[in-house]
Amino acid sequence: MKNTQILTNQVTNILNALLIQGVHDAVLAPGSRSTPLALGLAQLAREHKINLYVDVDERSAAFFALGISKTTAKPVLLLCTSGTAAANFYPAICEAFSSHIPLIVLTTDRPPELTKIGAPQALDQDRFYGHQVKKFVQLPLASDNLNERQYTNFMVQRSVIQATSVPRGPVHLNLPLRKPLMPQLPLSFMEQPKKLVRSEMKPSLPTAEITALSTTFSDKRGLIIMGPDETQTDYTALLHWAEKAEWPILADPLSQLRGYDSKCIISTYDILLKTQLSLLDGLKPDVIIRSGGTFVSAALGTWLKQIDVPVYYLDPNSELNDYTETLTNILPLPTSSFFELCPYPAPKSDWLSKWNRIQKTIKKNLAAINSDHLVEPLIPQMLEHYLPVKAHLFISNSMPIRDIDSYFLPQKSFHYLYCNRGANGIDGIISSALGMSSKFQNNVLLTGDLAFFHDMNGLMMAERYHLQLRVIVINNNGGGIFSFLPQANTTDFENVFGTPQNLALDLVAQLFHAEYIKVQNITDCVQALQKPLHGLEIIEIPTDRTTNVSVHKAMLQAIAQKLSEEFC
Amino acid sequence: MKNTQILTNQVTNILNALLIQGVHDAVLAPGSRSTPLALGLAQLAREHKINLYVDVDERSAAFFALGISKTTAKPVLLLCTSGTAAANFYPAICEAFSSHIPLIVLTTDRPPELTKIGAPQALDQDRFYGHQVKKFVQLPLASDNLNERQYTNFMVQRSVIQATSVPRGPVHLNLPLRKPLMPQLPLSFMEQPKKLVRSEMKPSLPTAEITALSTTFSDKRGLIIMGPDETQTDYTALLHWAEKAEWPILADPLSQLRGYDSKCIISTYDILLKTQLSLLDGLKPDVIIRSGGTFVSAALGTWLKQIDVPVYYLDPNSELNDYTETLTNILPLPTSSFFELCPYPAPKSDWLSKWNRIQKTIKKNLAAINSDHLVEPLIPQMLEHYLPVKAHLFISNSMPIRDIDSYFLPQKSFHYLYCNRGANGIDGIISSALGMSSKFQNNVLLTGDLAFFHDMNGLMMAERYHLQLRVIVINNNGGGIFSFLPQANTTDFENVFGTPQNLALDLVAQLFHAEYIKVQNITDCVQALQKPLHGLEIIEIPTDRTTNVSVHKAMLQAIAQKLSEEFC
Repeated sequence: MKNTQILTNQVTNILNALLIQGVHDAVLAPGSRSTPLALGLAQLAREHKINLYVDVDERSAAFFALGISKTTAKPVLLLCTSGTAAANFYPAICEAFSSHIPLIVLTTDRPPELTKIGAPQALDQDRFYGHQVKKFVQLPLASDNLNERQYTNFMVQRSVIQATSVPRGPVHLNLPLRKPLMPQLPLSFMEQPKKLVRSEMKPSLPTAEITALSTTFSDKRGLIIMGPDETQTDYTALLHWAEKAEWPILADPLSQLRGYDSKCIISTYDILLKTQLSLLDGLKPDVIIRSGGTFVSAALGTWLKQIDVPVYYLDPNSELNDYTETLTNILPLPTSSFFELCPYPAPKSDWLSKWNRIQKTIKKNLAAINSDHLVEPLIPQMLEHYLPVKAHLFISNSMPIRDIDSYFLPQKSFHYLYCNRGANGIDGIISSALGMSSKFQNNVLLTGDLAFFHDMNGLMMAERYHLQLRVIVINNNGGGIFSFLPQANTTDFENVFGTPQNLALDLVAQLFHAEYIKVQNITDCVQALQKPLHGLEIIEIPTDRTTNVSVHKAMLQAIAQKLSEEFC
Repeated sequence: MKNTQILTNQVTNILNALLIQGVHDAVLAPGSRSTPLALGLAQLAREHKINLYVDVDERSAAFFALGISKTTAKPVLLLCTSGTAAANFYPAICEAFSSHIPLIVLTTDRPPELTKIGAPQALDQDRFYGHQVKKFVQLPLASDNLNERQYTNFMVQRSVIQATSVPRGPVHLNLPLRKPLMPQLPLSFMEQPKKLVRSEMKPSLPTAEITALSTTFSDKRGLIIMGPDETQTDYTALLHWAEKAEWPILADPLSQLRGYDSKCIISTYDILLKTQLSLLDGLKPDVIIRSGGTFVSAALGTWLKQIDVPVYYLDPNSELNDYTETLTNILPLPTSSFFELCPYPAPKSDWLSKWNRIQKTIKKNLAAINSDHLVEPLIPQMLEHYLPVKAHLFISNSMPIRDIDSYFLPQKSFHYLYCNRGANGIDGIISSALGMSSKFQNNVLLTGDLAFFHDMNGLMMAERYHLQLRVIVINNNGGGIFSFLPQANTTDFENVFGTPQNLALDLVAQLFHAEYIKVQNITDCVQALQKPLHGLEIIEIPTDRTTNVSVHKAMLQAIAQKLSEEFC
């Protein structure tokens, strides 16, 4: 067989394997070595068999892929050329590994005879992402050996299955390609490979054991803690159970539960726990059922350690990831299965209602102290009111997710909330949000100015693919979170922590053809948030780092005062 | 001992170890976990004991450090917090590893009890950079155990020595730190650690063997090929030897030899070899002495394979990195030692002069065909004339370094040329150049628009540290190099290879407070290049990707025609 034909077969073989395993989205960072796959993907995109996104900054490209995969819970192909291009994927891969996102990372490589010998643009790409991927596979060179072709096909299909099997995560395929790199065009995708089928059968649940657990929870003042879960879990059984048992659900903003219309949803716990009031003594539960990832609230972690009660952790992957080390019983079950099968206990009087009275007081007083100034803790509260219906809200790490945790307390208005909480980085935020935007409507990003600056390049994709994203930038000109830390008063604070960048957001908006609005007060902000969404918009909210700490403190003190008056 | 005192001792211990080993430059990407070291560095910077640069984008920060280390040949400290921050360093670390640059990468980490347990912002940082560092060291937690303190000190000192010992390269230290993270300020650096002294004694050279080699070279038509060498090698002996022996030196642009006033320097070989004229038959040498890294010219590699003559490779590290696989004899000697000790052979008549006649014809005709249009191959020729004296010229990968290789042919005007040729990436180019700018004067960067866009964030450092850099952007609105490849005529070319970004460079200039000049013709360009250098400037040279290929071809054909007329 001719080399061109062998290469052509290799490319269709790989792309077919991806298609047959349900990969419908691909992100390409262009380069030379990846030529045959890039051309194949472009053809598939023209034929509407795959969605192809091209991003020249590989760091942004990888986060864009992560954004799609995270918000659709589907595998996404990420492709690049050899060399440092692949290294730029690393931050997003680390995040994907920590937060169980099924990226199929396909790096192309020089052929064996051009590695480790000083050839240009060649790195040792073997196990290039170390511990940060679920699997690494070195694919063979294109060849006319049938067994080798079948091996490649099997390994590519298997990689998608492994990436999407719990615990999900990124897999890395490294593909050496030898010149010439031009396949025979157009590619023919007629020959379908044999599909590797993963049975979706589930083991039958241990119904008797789950039922037996109910005695554990009977006659107890119980709490449910729902941590981050971005996998579109069905909460019907949970909500029914909690309502019947009258157990409060402490709902992390990323649990997707805060918007549900349920008397059980408690979203004010972060504020409450930070007050450290004596009324907390009366809120100590007898038992806790926990589900989801590591919750945002540090105060909740501290409280769990203090109260020292049994914690049943719904952990279908048996990962036992609990940095508070308070979990006592692991239930290797999906959340929905547990609440479907375990009979609910009878309610304890004045338990849920107590939590609700406190929540009501917090909410009422928060609304009352809304100052005239557009301070940072107000922004989540305004979003609560003025987010579009069923918004997809991406939140940056650092201050935004903490403020959302404390102050975003929606009721009866459902939104999807996302944040890169695997490794909690402030990198790739814009690209992650735009990945989301490529799949959904009503997309909003809440970010600080440093995270915005960090991934400014990511904005390019909005223009290229006509994506809709309202970017709300809380611009306190630097690293606002550091002002909350002990170093805030040191001589060198501004130099090594504050780090003001003085970024002119209006110019950034102009550069990326975004609509730009700067809001200076609450009225302006309301007006800006109420505008219909379209295209790329940047809403800049200037705030002040130095007063931000005292604003947060004052708000908490005011709430604490009211709670104390009412309940202590 | 109190925890604060233990932490304080740990920080001074580490910083003292770095200082005593001659680390004078540090680049910090801010974060919380690195707090005590950041404060220590800031204090040292105020006390003028270290130069500290703070860059919030870790990817740029790492390339900035690389730029300093590359151009000063000194170790540079690179510090960050835990999590994806460290992953953003990866591209620069890969480049540093491939191009032997001594970065001291210090990542801070959560303490053991917060790793692999779902704690926020915690990754598995053990061997985080895989094969891409010379050494990985896990440092212990701060402790009042004297042996452990001595171990830390020893390992930090050793890391600097290892990074700077040939073959040089990056080392990775991972330092877990436990809260509280505030040391006692100001730190006292009085207590000096015991210095680990590396003897600079060199083994005596095998003088007899080197002398004996001279018979190998006698009565031969010899060539010297000098590849990239950015380590400020002393070329006195080489030039003396070559002039006496009348051997041509094919000088890679990154060999730093092109500007020397010597009859032996041949810089036109890339053009010459590309013509594939029959006159090349008469230029086949009997023997070659080669030194330095992988040369830029692909044509030179192809020619070496064709001519199949003995190649003596000066390879002090015995790395045997020769992707052309044409080296036949390895001389484990520094370039200067060899040429000092090996007697030069007697000249062969009409050998060097032949090369020089051809070079003269190429240069003359290049000058003559300078068109009216400001096409890409003209830009290196203009730089040749209008670079400031002893300029520090950083060159981007992809087209710029190739055009420099072919068309930058200075005589009697010395400049320092740098390019990230370890992995040949187009990432981190601006930051690498600004790292250089922090140490030198007359700094110029030649880059394409994609590389410029990729590291746009890097420009922030110019403003922050008042750095001087003239950024010349050849803006052909996309990936110009791909038009030279076979895929240039495919349907999907613009989508997956051309990738125009339509970046408004004037706005970028405004955003980063750079002076901006757009030049449309040769006169404007000359004027712009002749302006005195100050601060950050962006000179945009718009060119056309589609005509660029034919322009290059036409230029080569014109030269080939003249050479053919004169010599064939």
